[in-house]
Amino acid sequence: MEQLPLYAIATGVVALVVAALFYFRVKAAPEGGPAIARIARYIREGAMAFLVREYKVLAIYAAVVSSALFFGFQSQGLGAHAALAFLSGAALSLLAGFFGMRAATFANVRTTEAARTKGMAAALVMALDGGAVMGLCVAGLGLLGLGLVTKLFADTPHHTFGTVIHAFAVGASSIALFARIGGGIYTKAADVGADIVGKVEANIPEDDPRNPGVIADNVGDNVGDIAGMGADIYESYVAAIVAAMALGLTMPFQELQPLAPDNPSEVSVRALAVGLPILLGTLGLAVSILGIFITRSLSSLPPATVLRLALIVPPFLAIGAAYFVLPHFGITTSALVTLGAGALGGAVVGLVTDYYTSMGPIHKIAASSLTGPGTNVIRGLAVGLESCAIPLLTLCIVGWVADHYLGLYGIALAAVGMLAGTAIVMTVDAYGPIADNAGGISEMGGLGPDVRKITDELAAVGNTTAAVGKGSAIGSAVLTVVALLVKIKMEVNASRAARGLGPLSLNLVDAEVLMGILFGAILPCLVGATTMTAVGRAAGAIVEEIRRQFREIPGLLEGKEGAEPQPARIVDLATTAAIREMLAPGAIAIIAPVLIGFLLGAKVLAGALAGALAVGATLSLLMANAGGAWDNAKKFIEKGGLPGHKKGSDAHKAAVVGDTVGDPFKDTSGPGVAILIKVMAVVSLLIAPMLT
Amino acid sequence: MEQLPLYAIATGVVALVVAALFYFRVKAAPEGGPAIARIARYIREGAMAFLVREYKVLAIYAAVVSSALFFGFQSQGLGAHAALAFLSGAALSLLAGFFGMRAATFANVRTTEAARTKGMAAALVMALDGGAVMGLCVAGLGLLGLGLVTKLFADTPHHTFGTVIHAFAVGASSIALFARIGGGIYTKAADVGADIVGKVEANIPEDDPRNPGVIADNVGDNVGDIAGMGADIYESYVAAIVAAMALGLTMPFQELQPLAPDNPSEVSVRALAVGLPILLGTLGLAVSILGIFITRSLSSLPPATVLRLALIVPPFLAIGAAYFVLPHFGITTSALVTLGAGALGGAVVGLVTDYYTSMGPIHKIAASSLTGPGTNVIRGLAVGLESCAIPLLTLCIVGWVADHYLGLYGIALAAVGMLAGTAIVMTVDAYGPIADNAGGISEMGGLGPDVRKITDELAAVGNTTAAVGKGSAIGSAVLTVVALLVKIKMEVNASRAARGLGPLSLNLVDAEVLMGILFGAILPCLVGATTMTAVGRAAGAIVEEIRRQFREIPGLLEGKEGAEPQPARIVDLATTAAIREMLAPGAIAIIAPVLIGFLLGAKVLAGALAGALAVGATLSLLMANAGGAWDNAKKFIEKGGLPGHKKGSDAHKAAVVGDTVGDPFKDTSGPGVAILIKVMAVVSLLIAPMLT
Repeated sequence: MEQLPLYAIATGVVALVVAALFYFRVKAAPEGGPAIARIARYIREGAMAFLVREYKVLAIYAAVVSSALFFGFQSQGLGAHAALAFLSGAALSLLAGFFGMRAATFANVRTTEAARTKGMAAALVMALDGGAVMGLCVAGLGLLGLGLVTKLFADTPHHTFGTVIHAFAVGASSIALFARIGGGIYTKAADVGADIVGKVEANIPEDDPRNPGVIADNVGDNVGDIAGMGADIYESYVAAIVAAMALGLTMPFQELQPLAPDNPSEVSVRALAVGLPILLGTLGLAVSILGIFITRSLSSLPPATVLRLALIVPPFLAIGAAYFVLPHFGITTSALVTLGAGALGGAVVGLVTDYYTSMGPIHKIAASSLTGPGTNVIRGLAVGLESCAIPLLTLCIVGWVADHYLGLYGIALAAVGMLAGTAIVMTVDAYGPIADNAGGISEMGGLGPDVRKITDELAAVGNTTAAVGKGSAIGSAVLTVVALLVKIKMEVNASRAARGLGPLSLNLVDAEVLMGILFGAILPCLVGATTMTAVGRAAGAIVEEIRRQFREIPGLLEGKEGAEPQPARIVDLATTAAIREMLAPGAIAIIAPVLIGFLLGAKVLAGALAGALAVGATLSLLMANAGGAWDNAKKFIEKGGLPGHKKGSDAHKAAVVGDTVGDPFKDTSGPGVAILIKVMAVVSLLIAPMLT
Repeated sequence: MEQLPLYAIATGVVALVVAALFYFRVKAAPEGGPAIARIARYIREGAMAFLVREYKVLAIYAAVVSSALFFGFQSQGLGAHAALAFLSGAALSLLAGFFGMRAATFANVRTTEAARTKGMAAALVMALDGGAVMGLCVAGLGLLGLGLVTKLFADTPHHTFGTVIHAFAVGASSIALFARIGGGIYTKAADVGADIVGKVEANIPEDDPRNPGVIADNVGDNVGDIAGMGADIYESYVAAIVAAMALGLTMPFQELQPLAPDNPSEVSVRALAVGLPILLGTLGLAVSILGIFITRSLSSLPPATVLRLALIVPPFLAIGAAYFVLPHFGITTSALVTLGAGALGGAVVGLVTDYYTSMGPIHKIAASSLTGPGTNVIRGLAVGLESCAIPLLTLCIVGWVADHYLGLYGIALAAVGMLAGTAIVMTVDAYGPIADNAGGISEMGGLGPDVRKITDELAAVGNTTAAVGKGSAIGSAVLTVVALLVKIKMEVNASRAARGLGPLSLNLVDAEVLMGILFGAILPCLVGATTMTAVGRAAGAIVEEIRRQFREIPGLLEGKEGAEPQPARIVDLATTAAIREMLAPGAIAIIAPVLIGFLLGAKVLAGALAGALAVGATLSLLMANAGGAWDNAKKFIEKGGLPGHKKGSDAHKAAVVGDTVGDPFKDTSGPGVAILIKVMAVVSLLIAPMLT
């Protein structure tokens, strides 16, 4: 078992090497004529400028929090451990975002060029290669970091090792929170702002080069749907593995023993329990690397089929690999069942998401557009509410099965099983916005309808795969938080025991716990409200600036030669607004558990985590799925799904309203709420040893 | 203490006598010329036709459930008790709805006539008198029923008395669920349907007599906002009192003793704990009757001020009265503090609701309409999410305070304190739709702008008071469910003890409890989804029929002499649709706890109730407040709140979209979800003695 961290590190390094190869392969491809290359440069510069400014703010945040950790854990002699682990978790998240987004901003224009010169299959491969850099960086850096941490600290006392991995997870999660919310606000403010003036007021098409907002809109795809999404998935991956490791570290022996019933040694079974999540991460990453190559090789098949398979098959292959590997460690097949339940649950959640965002329900939303935007929005919200049911039920069943076989440790393991295919899932997720960007560049560069048709088809698939990816991220988040709750309780009990107190009574029917549940329900609402308002406010500022440019730049709207928009001003506005507006929701998520924990105690905090979990899971599923469904209902009408009601008809306009509402739902507030519940849980975990 | 039920019965009878006086006073008033009298008759007949058909369906439901109870409780020798108590609770709910709605359908046209002949103050009094019939019937029948049940069964064994009051509450709650959802679907389907064809397509004003849907729209106000709302408030009132009585009956003596610390007798303290909720109901009803007369006498003041005071002051007066009465029973001032916390909490929730639905936030929603319906809807949803925070926080604080003074029994008492003013709150709530109807009748009858101006002003206030009433209903629901959870646990433990099992372990950090919480989160989503879809579907059918009439009845749209719409067909469509569509969400609420309890056990059921509570409270506050805010934002624009953007402007049209989305939110799904959590809790309570 002591070799496991080395395998993880080695696999992580291989993944990063492969990522580098994809990176240089993408960069070496032809980027097309000067017109589209210039547009791509604008997008790349805007995206990197946002990332640099965001990272500066996050550096201040990281400095403050790592100092607080340094002093907070000083008394236990773990100040430097906690601070450095936090910084490592945070830094790796930033690095993954940086490399992945840089690759994406090279890949977008090269996908356009490949579509122009070589056709669909080549364009698909180019977009996938760009996405693979992000996918491999996310899983590779995550596994590398966790492997290193385990290698260095696995032999230290449990409390030391625990503090290190918890602080590592807090670093990953809190950076992800800011990156996801900041990127989400940017992308949707730019999208909504550009659409309102462009499509609705000036009546010019999406991505029209006259619209000063389209560069910012395309920048947004990169900073939100690539860098933000990447940080999110990296965080899910790290948090799931850390939760399982942490439980392995401190669960009572008799609860872990079913993992390896023939092994009488507590030390050795515990080492298995701690190592298994990393082992599964290693197998999953290896399978995913292979999967990425297989997916590329299938590029001549219909993209929708290829990408759906790429999302759903790899976790099962990883578990299949585990079937051969685990017996060598004396691990029972219960672990496989648990991992399998997680993978199957993730697939069900993904397929249900797929159903609600691309099949029957979107036809109903489209049909409800015939009676106007009001009924379109009502129907979309109803679809979103309904879409929560099967995923939540599935998670309940996965939880029950996992608990039945391996207790609460099993629930953590199921979350790891759900994320076994992270590298390829993230590849496919990042592919979507690259294809979207490719379409934008082709439109702005005036490459004509043939190229646009290819990029549109690639982008349409991306829309669905993004929704599927979000669904399984929320699913793993729920299971991870359930596991973390267990671990938090154990930490608090250890802290109480050290102070001579009895174990925490966490009776559900207790005024403090129930009030905690209600209190916890508030937090997802506040994060939802602040992020939606932020998008509205930032979009409003962008609308004003675009209107000003149309008014004050002579000939711009008419498309006269020499009348150039000033996209940099919009990019700057969006950047400033996104960075300013991400602070309040981010602060709520990080400060709330600290205040509740220290002022009201561990009992209320545990209740609050459960309340935030129930409401947060529901809201984020509702928002992600309704948002995806509205978007695709609009696209369905655009493709002629409602005979007699084409693009530009009243029904289509009604569908555009739903899509506008769905924009912040699916890409800002929904993901923000999903991360909130994990950030609250990991922050609570970190402070739990100081609570009573 | 044994006199208390008699006082309650006497006060209930007084309230019903006063209600009868108001009823006959309203009926004796002049109903105006034949034109408006005929319109009013259409509305009255449509409303009564709906009620009759709804009651037939509910009679079947009641027959089935009472038979199930008869046989289910047979083994304990309580079959007849449970069945009859259930039928009484249900029948009193139906009676209150019947009398209240009948009075309202007389009062609406007489309010129009009073506005025409005597002016604002007389019209206000007429609408209030109509509402008072409902208000007094709701509280009077509720108190009368509970007083009779207590008088008859208080001396029977606890288990018998408990079963009787639980079954009474289940009767009240489940009828309320169907009445609220059925009425809500009716009113919003008719409203949305009539608006879509009338305002948006045919461009004719609200309540225009040419629109075949306006009669159904006005019927909807009566069946939804009066009969449905009345059943809802009756249920809240009964459930809150029953929860406190039930806890008084079985809480361990040492937890009840702080209520009367000088009284050493368990029997006598327990009798106080059971009697106190009824005593407070009696005081509250007495104060409310006085309050109704005082409110009427202030009719020359601005209606907004008078009605806000009428909503907020009476609970405090009731507690002031309790200050003088309680010492006679040796009850400590802790009870007053707890009741006061509940009343104050209710007032805070009401005022916060008032703020979010009539002040700053609606200006922001109105301003966001300038950039289109998409941003209007986004802003409204953000306002709704934000509006959950302070009410939920307030409920946490009330819960903490109540628990601090009187333990979990105190939380139940706080809910009773919150509802002490039920009779007058319901009067003001029912006043709103009467004023709305009066406006509709005046428009349809062509009485001109002067009359309409008066009825519009009366109706505008009603809109806000309705939101305030909903807020405190949700607040009391949350506290009641918390109290019921405690009681359910006690009942299950008694059942387990009888089977030789130890007490139920309800650890929050337990896979079954946590999975139960996630499972419970599904149910509010499903009720929300099915009710929103139902409104959309029923509205669609109405739209088709109205379009058909405009198409096929020559001269109707042009308003030619002799071209008459066929409102009866719309009324019939809405009735059929509402009754059909109420069944699925109603069945979910009633069947889910039974299935969970018997198949998965009490542990999962307790978790599910907590999960449904957290998500249900959030969704219903969000929906009620966002809906009210959208409605008032639209009215704000209509009154010139956005200079340069009048009625009919693009900004106004955007606001109408928000209002359309808000319609099912505030009047169908939001209230449906709020009742769901209580129905689940009372049904669970009733079956708890059979669970393990």
